[in-house]
Amino acid sequence: MKVISAIKEMHEYVDKLKRRKHTIGFAPTMGALHEGHLSLMAAAKQANEKVIASIFVNPAQFAAGEDFEKYPRDVKKDLKLLKNTKNVDCVFTPDPKEIYPDGYATYVELGNEMPKGLCGATRPGHFKGVTTVVSMLLNIVKPDRLYLGQKDLQQAMIIKKMIYDLKYPVETVICPILREKDGLAMSSRNMYLNPDERNTAPALHKSLQMAESMIELGERDPQVLVREIKRKLKEANVEIDYVEVVDPDTLVKKDRVGSRSAIAAAIYVGKTRLIDNTIINLKE
Amino acid sequence: MKVISAIKEMHEYVDKLKRRKHTIGFAPTMGALHEGHLSLMAAAKQANEKVIASIFVNPAQFAAGEDFEKYPRDVKKDLKLLKNTKNVDCVFTPDPKEIYPDGYATYVELGNEMPKGLCGATRPGHFKGVTTVVSMLLNIVKPDRLYLGQKDLQQAMIIKKMIYDLKYPVETVICPILREKDGLAMSSRNMYLNPDERNTAPALHKSLQMAESMIELGERDPQVLVREIKRKLKEANVEIDYVEVVDPDTLVKKDRVGSRSAIAAAIYVGKTRLIDNTIINLKE
Repeated sequence: MKVISAIKEMHEYVDKLKRRKHTIGFAPTMGALHEGHLSLMAAAKQANEKVIASIFVNPAQFAAGEDFEKYPRDVKKDLKLLKNTKNVDCVFTPDPKEIYPDGYATYVELGNEMPKGLCGATRPGHFKGVTTVVSMLLNIVKPDRLYLGQKDLQQAMIIKKMIYDLKYPVETVICPILREKDGLAMSSRNMYLNPDERNTAPALHKSLQMAESMIELGERDPQVLVREIKRKLKEANVEIDYVEVVDPDTLVKKDRVGSRSAIAAAIYVGKTRLIDNTIINLKE
Repeated sequence: MKVISAIKEMHEYVDKLKRRKHTIGFAPTMGALHEGHLSLMAAAKQANEKVIASIFVNPAQFAAGEDFEKYPRDVKKDLKLLKNTKNVDCVFTPDPKEIYPDGYATYVELGNEMPKGLCGATRPGHFKGVTTVVSMLLNIVKPDRLYLGQKDLQQAMIIKKMIYDLKYPVETVICPILREKDGLAMSSRNMYLNPDERNTAPALHKSLQMAESMIELGERDPQVLVREIKRKLKEANVEIDYVEVVDPDTLVKKDRVGSRSAIAAAIYVGKTRLIDNTIINLKE
Protein backbone atom coordinates (compact mmCIF):
# COMPACT_ATOMS: atom_id res chain seq x y z
CA MET A 1 0.00 0.00 0.00
CA LYS A 2 1.48 3.31 -1.14
CA VAL A 3 1.29 6.39 1.07
CA ILE A 4 1.65 9.71 -0.73
CA SER A 5 1.56 13.19 0.80
CA ALA A 6 2.80 15.49 -1.99
CA ILE A 7 0.16 16.61 -4.48
CA LYS A 8 2.63 16.45 -7.37
CA GLU A 9 3.48 12.84 -6.55
CA MET A 10 -0.21 12.01 -6.35
CA HIS A 11 -0.82 13.51 -9.80
CA GLU A 12 2.01 11.35 -11.16
CA TYR A 13 0.75 8.19 -9.47
CA VAL A 14 -2.77 8.72 -10.81
CA ASP A 15 -1.50 9.56 -14.31
CA LYS A 16 0.36 6.27 -14.32
CA LEU A 17 -2.80 4.37 -13.35
CA LYS A 18 -4.74 6.22 -16.07
CA ARG A 19 -2.17 5.36 -18.72
CA ARG A 20 -2.51 1.71 -17.70
CA LYS A 21 -6.30 2.14 -18.07
CA HIS A 22 -6.97 1.21 -14.45
CA THR A 23 -10.28 2.35 -13.04
CA ILE A 24 -10.01 4.20 -9.74
CA GLY A 25 -12.35 4.06 -6.77
CA PHE A 26 -11.84 6.83 -4.21
CA ALA A 27 -12.98 7.23 -0.62
CA PRO A 28 -12.12 10.54 1.05
CA THR A 29 -11.97 10.47 4.86
CA MET A 30 -10.90 12.61 7.78
CA GLY A 31 -9.16 9.63 9.38
CA ALA A 32 -10.11 8.21 12.79
CA LEU A 33 -11.27 5.28 10.73
CA HIS A 34 -13.89 2.78 11.80
CA GLU A 35 -15.63 -0.11 10.08
CA GLY A 36 -17.96 2.31 8.30
CA HIS A 37 -14.98 3.78 6.45
CA LEU A 38 -13.58 0.33 5.76
CA SER A 39 -16.88 -0.71 4.18
CA LEU A 40 -16.38 2.12 1.64
CA MET A 41 -12.95 0.72 0.75
CA ALA A 42 -14.41 -2.78 0.38
CA ALA A 43 -17.15 -1.50 -1.93
CA ALA A 44 -14.57 0.43 -3.94
CA LYS A 45 -12.38 -2.65 -4.28
CA GLN A 46 -15.25 -4.67 -5.71
CA ALA A 47 -15.93 -2.26 -8.58
CA ASN A 48 -12.52 -0.75 -9.42
CA GLU A 49 -9.07 -1.95 -10.32
CA LYS A 50 -7.40 0.49 -7.94
CA VAL A 51 -8.61 2.00 -4.68
CA ILE A 52 -7.36 5.29 -3.30
CA ALA A 53 -8.29 6.60 0.14
CA SER A 54 -7.47 10.01 1.52
CA ILE A 55 -6.98 11.10 5.11
CA PHE A 56 -7.31 14.83 5.62
CA VAL A 57 -8.91 16.70 8.49
CA ASN A 58 -10.24 19.59 6.42
CA PRO A 59 -10.08 22.85 8.40
CA ALA A 60 -12.44 24.60 5.96
CA GLN A 61 -15.38 22.43 6.96
CA PHE A 62 -15.20 23.20 10.67
CA ALA A 63 -17.06 26.30 11.80
CA ALA A 64 -15.53 28.54 14.47
CA GLY A 65 -15.87 26.91 17.87
CA GLU A 66 -16.28 23.41 16.47
CA ASP A 67 -14.01 20.46 17.21
CA PHE A 68 -11.29 20.99 14.54
CA GLU A 69 -8.49 21.08 17.10
CA LYS A 70 -9.62 18.06 19.09
CA TYR A 71 -10.85 15.99 16.11
CA PRO A 72 -9.25 12.56 16.63
CA ARG A 73 -6.05 12.09 14.61
CA ASP A 74 -4.05 8.87 14.55
CA VAL A 75 -2.70 8.45 11.03
CA LYS A 76 -0.40 5.58 12.01
CA LYS A 77 -3.31 3.54 13.32
CA ASP A 78 -5.45 4.50 10.29
CA LEU A 79 -2.77 3.37 7.85
CA LYS A 80 -2.42 0.06 9.66
CA LEU A 81 -6.18 -0.49 9.49
CA LEU A 82 -6.27 0.32 5.78
CA LYS A 83 -3.29 -1.90 5.05
CA ASN A 84 -4.86 -4.83 6.87
CA THR A 85 -7.98 -4.67 4.71
CA LYS A 86 -5.88 -5.27 1.57
CA ASN A 87 -8.54 -3.23 -0.22
CA VAL A 88 -6.54 -0.02 -0.59
CA ASP A 89 -3.73 0.56 -3.11
CA CYS A 90 -2.80 4.09 -2.12
CA VAL A 91 -3.50 6.49 0.73
CA PHE A 92 -3.26 10.22 0.10
CA THR A 93 -2.32 12.13 3.26
CA PRO A 94 -1.87 15.72 2.10
CA ASP A 95 -0.27 18.50 4.09
CA PRO A 96 -2.81 21.18 5.10
CA LYS A 97 -0.33 23.83 3.96
CA GLU A 98 -0.32 22.38 0.47
CA ILE A 99 -4.10 22.10 0.31
CA TYR A 100 -4.66 25.60 1.67
CA PRO A 101 -1.48 27.58 0.98
CA ASP A 102 -1.16 31.21 2.10
CA GLY A 103 -3.55 33.33 0.08
CA TYR A 104 -5.86 30.43 -0.71
CA ALA A 105 -9.07 31.98 -2.11
CA THR A 106 -11.20 29.62 -4.22
CA TYR A 107 -14.42 28.06 -2.95
CA VAL A 108 -16.93 25.69 -4.52
CA GLU A 109 -20.40 26.19 -3.15
CA LEU A 110 -24.01 25.21 -3.76
CA GLY A 111 -26.19 28.30 -4.01
CA ASN A 112 -29.48 26.45 -3.48
CA GLU A 113 -31.21 25.33 -0.30
CA MET A 114 -29.37 22.00 0.07
CA PRO A 115 -26.55 23.28 2.33
CA LYS A 116 -28.84 25.55 4.37
CA GLY A 117 -31.12 23.14 6.23
CA LEU A 118 -30.42 20.14 8.49
CA CYS A 119 -26.78 20.26 9.68
CA GLY A 120 -26.16 23.40 7.59
CA ALA A 121 -28.38 25.45 9.89
CA THR A 122 -26.07 24.97 12.88
CA ARG A 123 -22.78 24.54 10.97
CA PRO A 124 -22.34 27.73 8.88
CA GLY A 125 -19.86 27.28 6.04
CA HIS A 126 -19.51 23.55 6.72
CA PHE A 127 -20.71 22.31 3.34
CA LYS A 128 -18.85 25.05 1.46
CA GLY A 129 -15.70 23.62 3.05
CA VAL A 130 -16.76 20.11 2.08
CA THR A 131 -17.52 20.85 -1.58
CA THR A 132 -14.32 22.86 -1.88
CA VAL A 133 -12.01 20.15 -0.56
CA VAL A 134 -13.80 17.37 -2.46
CA SER A 135 -13.45 19.38 -5.66
CA MET A 136 -9.69 19.57 -5.05
CA LEU A 137 -9.46 15.88 -4.22
CA LEU A 138 -11.34 14.97 -7.41
CA ASN A 139 -8.91 17.14 -9.42
CA ILE A 140 -5.98 15.31 -7.85
CA VAL A 141 -7.26 11.70 -7.64
CA LYS A 142 -9.43 11.77 -10.82
CA PRO A 143 -11.48 8.75 -9.72
CA ASP A 144 -14.05 6.90 -11.79
CA ARG A 145 -16.18 6.31 -8.68
CA LEU A 146 -16.44 8.20 -5.42
CA TYR A 147 -17.51 6.33 -2.26
CA LEU A 148 -19.43 8.20 0.42
CA GLY A 149 -21.32 7.02 3.48
CA GLN A 150 -25.07 7.44 3.90
CA LYS A 151 -24.49 8.38 7.56
CA ASP A 152 -23.61 11.86 6.33
CA LEU A 153 -26.65 12.01 4.06
CA GLN A 154 -26.69 15.76 3.49
CA GLN A 155 -22.96 15.76 2.74
CA ALA A 156 -23.31 12.85 0.30
CA MET A 157 -26.21 14.47 -1.56
CA ILE A 158 -24.50 17.86 -1.74
CA ILE A 159 -21.33 16.29 -3.13
CA LYS A 160 -23.36 14.27 -5.64
CA LYS A 161 -25.11 17.46 -6.78
CA MET A 162 -21.77 19.33 -7.05
CA ILE A 163 -20.34 16.51 -9.16
CA TYR A 164 -23.41 16.55 -11.41
CA ASP A 165 -23.45 20.33 -11.82
CA LEU A 166 -19.72 20.72 -12.46
CA LYS A 167 -19.68 17.78 -14.90
CA TYR A 168 -17.05 15.75 -13.08
CA PRO A 169 -16.88 12.39 -14.89
CA VAL A 170 -17.34 10.59 -11.58
CA GLU A 171 -20.01 8.20 -10.37
CA THR A 172 -21.09 8.82 -6.77
CA VAL A 173 -21.70 5.62 -4.79
CA ILE A 174 -23.44 6.00 -1.43
CA CYS A 175 -22.84 3.11 0.97
CA PRO A 176 -25.13 2.00 3.82
CA ILE A 177 -24.69 3.10 7.42
CA LEU A 178 -22.73 0.67 9.58
CA ARG A 179 -23.85 0.34 13.17
CA GLU A 180 -22.58 -0.88 16.53
CA LYS A 181 -24.42 -3.87 18.01
CA ASP A 182 -26.77 -1.57 19.93
CA GLY A 183 -27.65 0.34 16.75
CA LEU A 184 -25.49 3.45 17.23
CA ALA A 185 -24.29 4.61 13.81
CA MET A 186 -20.52 4.28 13.56
CA SER A 187 -18.82 7.67 13.69
CA SER A 188 -15.38 8.99 14.52
CA ARG A 189 -17.05 11.33 16.98
CA ASN A 190 -18.37 8.38 19.06
CA MET A 191 -14.88 8.40 20.61
CA TYR A 192 -15.85 11.60 22.44
CA LEU A 193 -18.60 9.83 24.41
CA ASN A 194 -18.01 8.90 28.05
CA PRO A 195 -19.53 5.58 29.20
CA ASP A 196 -22.82 7.17 30.33
CA GLU A 197 -23.15 9.11 27.08
CA ARG A 198 -22.30 5.99 25.11
CA ASN A 199 -25.21 4.22 26.83
CA THR A 200 -27.53 7.08 25.92
CA ALA A 201 -26.42 7.52 22.30
CA PRO A 202 -28.35 4.56 20.74
CA ALA A 203 -31.58 6.43 21.56
CA LEU A 204 -31.07 8.28 18.26
CA HIS A 205 -31.25 5.14 16.15
CA LYS A 206 -34.02 3.70 18.32
CA SER A 207 -36.17 6.78 17.76
CA LEU A 208 -35.71 6.44 13.99
CA GLN A 209 -36.58 2.72 14.19
CA MET A 210 -39.74 3.63 16.05
CA ALA A 211 -40.65 6.03 13.22
CA GLU A 212 -39.98 3.28 10.68
CA SER A 213 -42.42 1.04 12.56
CA MET A 214 -45.02 3.81 12.61
CA ILE A 215 -44.65 4.20 8.85
CA GLU A 216 -45.01 0.46 8.41
CA LEU A 217 -48.26 0.69 10.36
CA GLY A 218 -49.50 3.38 7.98
CA GLU A 219 -48.41 6.73 9.43
CA ARG A 220 -47.61 9.19 6.63
CA ASP A 221 -47.63 12.54 8.41
CA PRO A 222 -44.11 13.97 8.94
CA GLN A 223 -45.37 16.19 11.76
CA VAL A 224 -46.59 13.18 13.72
CA LEU A 225 -43.38 11.25 13.08
CA VAL A 226 -41.16 14.18 14.07
CA ARG A 227 -43.21 14.81 17.21
CA GLU A 228 -42.95 11.17 18.29
CA ILE A 229 -39.21 10.97 17.54
CA LYS A 230 -38.63 14.14 19.55
CA ARG A 231 -40.73 12.79 22.40
CA LYS A 232 -38.63 9.63 22.48
CA LEU A 233 -35.40 11.59 22.35
CA LYS A 234 -36.49 13.84 25.20
CA GLU A 235 -37.22 10.74 27.27
CA ALA A 236 -33.58 9.76 26.74
CA ASN A 237 -32.51 13.21 28.02
CA VAL A 238 -30.56 14.24 24.92
CA GLU A 239 -30.59 17.70 23.39
CA ILE A 240 -32.25 17.78 19.97
CA ASP A 241 -30.75 19.80 17.12
CA TYR A 242 -33.22 18.78 14.42
CA VAL A 243 -35.51 15.97 13.30
CA GLU A 244 -36.81 16.28 9.75
CA VAL A 245 -38.52 14.28 7.02
CA VAL A 246 -36.98 15.23 3.67
CA ASP A 247 -36.64 14.07 0.10
CA PRO A 248 -33.34 12.12 0.27
CA ASP A 249 -32.13 13.45 -3.09
CA THR A 250 -33.04 17.14 -2.87
CA LEU A 251 -33.20 17.41 0.97
CA VAL A 252 -36.42 19.41 0.59
CA LYS A 253 -38.86 18.96 3.51
CA LYS A 254 -41.72 16.63 2.73
CA ASP A 255 -45.29 17.27 3.82
CA ARG A 256 -46.14 13.59 3.44
CA VAL A 257 -44.09 10.38 3.61
CA GLY A 258 -44.18 9.45 -0.08
CA SER A 259 -42.55 6.68 -2.06
CA ARG A 260 -39.05 7.85 -1.14
CA SER A 261 -38.29 9.83 1.98
CA ALA A 262 -35.53 10.23 4.53
CA ILE A 263 -35.79 10.95 8.21
CA ALA A 264 -32.68 12.77 9.38
CA ALA A 265 -31.83 13.80 12.90
CA ALA A 266 -29.05 15.42 14.90
CA ILE A 267 -28.69 15.45 18.67
CA TYR A 268 -26.18 16.42 21.30
CA VAL A 269 -25.19 13.78 23.82
CA GLY A 270 -23.25 15.80 26.33
CA LYS A 271 -21.13 18.06 24.12
CA THR A 272 -20.93 15.51 21.30
CA ARG A 273 -23.04 16.09 18.21
CA LEU A 274 -24.36 12.88 16.65
CA ILE A 275 -26.33 12.45 13.44
CA ASP A 276 -28.25 9.57 11.95
CA ASN A 277 -30.86 8.98 9.28
CA THR A 278 -32.99 6.37 7.61
CA ILE A 279 -34.21 6.22 4.04
CA ILE A 280 -37.75 4.98 3.56
CA ASN A 281 -38.74 3.34 0.27
CA LEU A 282 -42.45 2.67 0.06
CA LYS A 283 -44.22 0.75 -2.66
CA GLU A 284 -47.24 2.96 -3.15
CA MET B 1 -12.12 18.83 -37.38
CA LYS B 2 -14.66 17.23 -35.07
CA VAL B 3 -17.58 19.23 -33.72
CA ILE B 4 -19.16 17.88 -30.53
CA SER B 5 -22.12 19.30 -28.62
CA ALA B 6 -23.08 16.55 -26.15
CA ILE B 7 -21.08 16.48 -22.91
CA LYS B 8 -21.12 12.67 -22.82
CA GLU B 9 -19.64 12.47 -26.31
CA MET B 10 -16.99 15.00 -25.30
CA HIS B 11 -16.03 12.90 -22.26
CA GLU B 12 -15.66 9.87 -24.54
CA TYR B 13 -13.61 11.76 -27.13
CA VAL B 14 -11.25 13.10 -24.47
CA ASP B 15 -10.93 9.70 -22.79
CA LYS B 16 -9.87 8.23 -26.12
CA LEU B 17 -7.19 10.91 -26.52
CA LYS B 18 -6.01 10.26 -22.97
CA ARG B 19 -5.73 6.52 -23.55
CA ARG B 20 -3.61 7.27 -26.61
CA LYS B 21 -1.48 9.49 -24.35
CA HIS B 22 -2.13 12.60 -26.46
CA THR B 23 -1.55 15.92 -24.73
CA ILE B 24 -4.45 18.35 -25.01
CA GLY B 25 -4.32 22.12 -25.44
CA PHE B 26 -7.62 23.89 -24.80
CA ALA B 27 -8.86 27.38 -25.67
CA PRO B 28 -12.34 28.29 -24.37
CA THR B 29 -14.12 31.06 -26.30
CA MET B 30 -17.52 32.71 -26.58
CA GLY B 31 -17.31 32.55 -30.37
CA ALA B 32 -17.38 35.66 -32.61
CA LEU B 33 -13.82 34.66 -33.29
CA HIS B 34 -11.09 37.00 -34.46
CA GLU B 35 -7.35 36.67 -35.00
CA GLY B 36 -6.77 37.02 -31.28
CA HIS B 37 -8.63 33.78 -30.67
CA LEU B 38 -6.90 32.09 -33.56
CA SER B 39 -3.52 33.00 -32.08
CA LEU B 40 -4.50 30.96 -28.99
CA MET B 41 -5.22 27.94 -31.21
CA ALA B 42 -1.88 28.39 -32.99
CA ALA B 43 -0.04 28.53 -29.66
CA ALA B 44 -1.92 25.44 -28.46
CA LYS B 45 -1.04 23.55 -31.64
CA GLN B 46 2.66 24.23 -31.13
CA ALA B 47 2.80 22.66 -27.66
CA ASN B 48 0.16 19.90 -27.70
CA GLU B 49 -0.70 16.87 -29.78
CA LYS B 50 -4.40 17.73 -29.85
CA VAL B 51 -6.15 21.09 -29.70
CA ILE B 52 -9.71 21.54 -28.47
CA ALA B 53 -11.60 24.83 -28.68
CA SER B 54 -14.96 25.57 -27.16
CA ILE B 55 -17.62 28.01 -28.26
CA PHE B 56 -20.12 28.86 -25.55
CA VAL B 57 -21.72 32.21 -24.76
CA ASN B 58 -21.88 31.73 -21.01
CA PRO B 59 -25.03 33.31 -19.57
CA ALA B 60 -23.65 33.14 -16.01
CA GLN B 61 -20.93 35.68 -16.75
CA PHE B 62 -23.26 38.41 -18.02
CA ALA B 63 -24.71 40.69 -15.37
CA ALA B 64 -28.32 41.85 -15.65
CA GLY B 65 -28.62 44.52 -18.33
CA GLU B 66 -25.41 43.48 -20.10
CA ASP B 67 -25.17 42.36 -23.71
CA PHE B 68 -25.88 38.62 -23.33
CA GLU B 69 -28.79 38.71 -25.78
CA LYS B 70 -27.05 40.74 -28.46
CA TYR B 71 -23.60 39.18 -28.02
CA PRO B 72 -22.52 38.27 -31.58
CA ARG B 73 -23.18 34.62 -32.46
CA ASP B 74 -22.23 33.04 -35.78
CA VAL B 75 -21.13 29.48 -35.04
CA LYS B 76 -21.06 28.49 -38.72
CA LYS B 77 -18.59 31.26 -39.51
CA ASP B 78 -16.57 30.46 -36.37
CA LEU B 79 -16.29 26.78 -37.29
CA LYS B 80 -15.15 27.69 -40.81
CA LEU B 81 -12.49 30.01 -39.40
CA LEU B 82 -11.25 27.32 -37.00
CA LYS B 83 -11.23 24.65 -39.69
CA ASN B 84 -9.20 26.86 -42.03
CA THR B 85 -6.45 27.31 -39.43
CA LYS B 86 -5.86 23.53 -39.36
CA ASN B 87 -4.82 24.05 -35.75
CA VAL B 88 -7.94 22.67 -34.09
CA ASP B 89 -8.84 18.98 -33.78
CA CYS B 90 -12.17 19.35 -32.03
CA VAL B 91 -14.64 22.12 -31.25
CA PHE B 92 -16.95 21.75 -28.28
CA THR B 93 -20.23 23.64 -28.76
CA PRO B 94 -22.33 22.70 -25.74
CA ASP B 95 -26.03 23.34 -25.34
CA PRO B 96 -26.74 25.95 -22.61
CA LYS B 97 -29.45 23.64 -21.24
CA GLU B 98 -26.89 20.90 -20.70
CA ILE B 99 -24.37 23.24 -19.07
CA TYR B 100 -26.97 24.87 -16.82
CA PRO B 101 -29.86 22.38 -16.49
CA ASP B 102 -32.95 23.27 -14.45
CA GLY B 103 -31.98 23.43 -10.80
CA TYR B 104 -28.32 24.18 -11.52
CA ALA B 105 -26.79 25.34 -8.23
CA THR B 106 -23.00 25.00 -8.00
CA TYR B 107 -20.65 27.96 -8.28
CA VAL B 108 -16.88 28.29 -8.16
CA GLU B 109 -15.76 31.64 -6.83
CA LEU B 110 -12.70 33.48 -5.61
CA GLY B 111 -13.31 34.94 -2.17
CA ASN B 112 -10.38 37.37 -2.27
CA GLU B 113 -10.07 40.83 -3.81
CA MET B 114 -9.16 39.67 -7.35
CA PRO B 115 -12.72 39.60 -8.74
CA LYS B 116 -13.77 42.79 -6.93
CA GLY B 117 -11.69 45.52 -8.56
CA LEU B 118 -11.17 46.57 -12.21
CA CYS B 119 -13.96 45.08 -14.37
CA GLY B 120 -15.44 43.32 -11.33
CA ALA B 121 -16.52 46.65 -9.84
CA THR B 122 -18.97 47.34 -12.69
CA ARG B 123 -19.76 43.72 -13.62
CA PRO B 124 -21.17 42.07 -10.46
CA GLY B 125 -21.05 38.26 -10.60
CA HIS B 126 -19.11 38.29 -13.87
CA PHE B 127 -16.03 36.45 -12.66
CA LYS B 128 -18.06 34.00 -10.58
CA GLY B 129 -19.73 33.04 -13.87
CA VAL B 130 -16.32 32.77 -15.54
CA THR B 131 -14.69 30.55 -12.90
CA THR B 132 -17.78 28.35 -12.73
CA VAL B 133 -17.97 27.65 -16.46
CA VAL B 134 -14.20 27.22 -16.81
CA SER B 135 -14.26 24.71 -13.96
CA MET B 136 -16.91 22.72 -15.84
CA LEU B 137 -15.01 22.95 -19.10
CA LEU B 138 -11.83 21.72 -17.41
CA ASN B 139 -13.76 18.76 -15.97
CA ILE B 140 -15.03 17.88 -19.44
CA VAL B 141 -12.00 18.63 -21.64
CA LYS B 142 -9.28 17.67 -19.09
CA PRO B 143 -6.58 19.64 -20.91
CA ASP B 144 -2.89 19.65 -20.15
CA ARG B 145 -2.64 23.33 -21.07
CA LEU B 146 -5.24 26.10 -21.07
CA TYR B 147 -4.82 29.05 -23.45
CA LEU B 148 -6.12 32.47 -22.45
CA GLY B 149 -5.63 35.95 -23.90
CA GLN B 150 -3.87 38.75 -22.03
CA LYS B 151 -6.51 41.18 -23.32
CA ASP B 152 -8.78 39.92 -20.54
CA LEU B 153 -6.02 40.20 -17.96
CA GLN B 154 -8.21 40.06 -14.87
CA GLN B 155 -10.09 37.05 -16.23
CA ALA B 156 -6.85 35.25 -17.10
CA MET B 157 -5.33 35.87 -13.67
CA ILE B 158 -8.49 34.83 -11.83
CA ILE B 159 -8.71 31.59 -13.83
CA LYS B 160 -5.01 30.92 -13.21
CA LYS B 161 -5.56 31.41 -9.48
CA MET B 162 -8.65 29.15 -9.50
CA ILE B 163 -6.67 26.42 -11.26
CA TYR B 164 -3.83 26.76 -8.76
CA ASP B 165 -6.10 26.73 -5.72
CA LEU B 166 -8.28 23.82 -6.84
CA LYS B 167 -5.24 21.77 -7.92
CA TYR B 168 -6.31 21.25 -11.51
CA PRO B 169 -3.37 19.55 -13.25
CA VAL B 170 -3.44 22.22 -15.96
CA GLU B 171 -0.81 24.72 -17.09
CA THR B 172 -2.24 28.17 -17.81
CA VAL B 173 -0.68 29.85 -20.87
CA ILE B 174 -1.43 33.55 -21.36
CA CYS B 175 -1.00 34.75 -24.95
CA PRO B 176 -0.19 38.33 -26.05
CA ILE B 177 -2.84 40.85 -27.14
CA LEU B 178 -3.40 41.01 -30.90
CA ARG B 179 -4.16 44.44 -32.31
CA GLU B 180 -5.63 46.04 -35.39
CA LYS B 181 -3.25 48.18 -37.47
CA ASP B 182 -4.25 51.32 -35.55
CA GLY B 183 -3.54 49.64 -32.22
CA LEU B 184 -7.08 48.77 -31.13
CA ALA B 185 -7.01 45.49 -29.20
CA MET B 186 -8.93 42.82 -31.08
CA SER B 187 -12.24 42.03 -29.40
CA SER B 188 -15.54 40.47 -30.40
CA ARG B 189 -17.23 43.59 -29.05
CA ASN B 190 -15.44 45.81 -31.62
CA MET B 191 -18.24 44.70 -33.96
CA TYR B 192 -20.61 46.91 -31.97
CA LEU B 193 -18.71 50.09 -32.94
CA ASN B 194 -20.12 52.38 -35.63
CA PRO B 195 -17.53 54.02 -37.96
CA ASP B 196 -17.15 57.14 -35.79
CA GLU B 197 -16.75 55.06 -32.64
CA ARG B 198 -14.30 52.79 -34.44
CA ASN B 199 -12.17 55.87 -35.22
CA THR B 200 -12.26 56.91 -31.59
CA ALA B 201 -11.55 53.48 -30.05
CA PRO B 202 -7.74 53.37 -30.62
CA ALA B 203 -7.42 56.23 -28.11
CA LEU B 204 -7.44 53.55 -25.42
CA HIS B 205 -4.29 51.85 -26.67
CA LYS B 206 -2.66 55.22 -27.50
CA SER B 207 -3.17 56.41 -23.93
CA LEU B 208 -1.49 53.26 -22.61
CA GLN B 209 1.39 53.72 -25.07
CA MET B 210 1.83 57.25 -23.80
CA ALA B 211 2.08 55.87 -20.26
CA GLU B 212 4.67 53.34 -21.42
CA SER B 213 6.75 56.20 -22.84
CA MET B 214 6.46 58.14 -19.59
CA ILE B 215 7.68 55.09 -17.68
CA GLU B 216 10.57 54.73 -20.10
CA LEU B 217 11.45 58.34 -19.33
CA GLY B 218 11.51 57.56 -15.61
CA GLU B 219 7.99 58.16 -14.32
CA ARG B 220 7.17 55.70 -11.52
CA ASP B 221 4.16 57.30 -9.86
CA PRO B 222 0.86 55.47 -10.66
CA GLN B 223 -1.14 58.57 -9.75
CA VAL B 224 0.70 60.65 -12.36
CA LEU B 225 0.33 57.93 -15.01
CA VAL B 226 -3.36 57.40 -14.32
CA ARG B 227 -3.99 61.18 -14.38
CA GLU B 228 -2.26 61.56 -17.74
CA ILE B 229 -4.01 58.54 -19.28
CA LYS B 230 -7.37 59.88 -18.11
CA ARG B 231 -6.53 63.33 -19.50
CA LYS B 232 -5.73 61.80 -22.89
CA LEU B 233 -8.89 59.69 -22.87
CA LYS B 234 -11.03 62.73 -22.03
CA GLU B 235 -9.50 64.54 -24.99
CA ALA B 236 -10.79 61.68 -27.15
CA ASN B 237 -14.28 62.17 -25.67
CA VAL B 238 -14.70 58.63 -24.34
CA GLU B 239 -16.27 57.73 -21.02
CA ILE B 240 -13.78 56.27 -18.56
CA ASP B 241 -14.70 53.26 -16.39
CA TYR B 242 -11.31 52.78 -14.73
CA VAL B 243 -7.58 53.24 -15.23
CA GLU B 244 -5.37 51.44 -12.72
CA VAL B 245 -1.79 50.37 -12.12
CA VAL B 246 -1.79 46.92 -10.55
CA ASP B 247 0.39 43.92 -9.90
CA PRO B 248 -0.37 41.76 -12.96
CA ASP B 249 -0.41 38.53 -10.95
CA THR B 250 -2.41 39.54 -7.89
CA LEU B 251 -4.26 42.54 -9.43
CA VAL B 252 -3.49 44.51 -6.23
CA LYS B 253 -3.08 48.27 -6.82
CA LYS B 254 0.53 49.41 -6.87
CA ASP B 255 1.74 52.60 -5.24
CA ARG B 256 4.86 52.62 -7.41
CA VAL B 257 5.67 51.19 -10.84
CA GLY B 258 8.04 48.41 -9.77
CA SER B 259 9.78 45.66 -11.67
CA ARG B 260 6.49 44.14 -12.82
CA SER B 261 3.32 46.14 -13.21
CA ALA B 262 0.24 46.27 -15.39
CA ILE B 263 -1.76 49.26 -16.48
CA ALA B 264 -5.34 48.21 -17.11
CA ALA B 265 -8.15 50.40 -18.39
CA ALA B 266 -11.80 50.18 -19.43
CA ILE B 267 -13.76 52.79 -21.36
CA TYR B 268 -17.11 53.17 -23.03
CA VAL B 269 -17.11 54.26 -26.67
CA GLY B 270 -20.75 55.01 -27.26
CA LYS B 271 -22.48 52.13 -25.50
CA THR B 272 -19.64 49.68 -26.15
CA ARG B 273 -17.34 48.77 -23.28
CA LEU B 274 -13.73 48.25 -24.32
CA ILE B 275 -10.80 47.09 -22.21
CA ASP B 276 -7.07 47.02 -22.76
CA ASN B 277 -3.89 46.68 -20.74
CA THR B 278 -0.14 46.65 -20.90
CA ILE B 279 2.32 44.74 -18.75
CA ILE B 280 5.48 46.63 -17.82
CA ASN B 281 8.64 44.71 -17.03
CA LEU B 282 11.40 46.92 -15.72
CA LYS B 283 14.96 45.92 -15.02
CA GLU B 284 15.52 47.68 -11.75
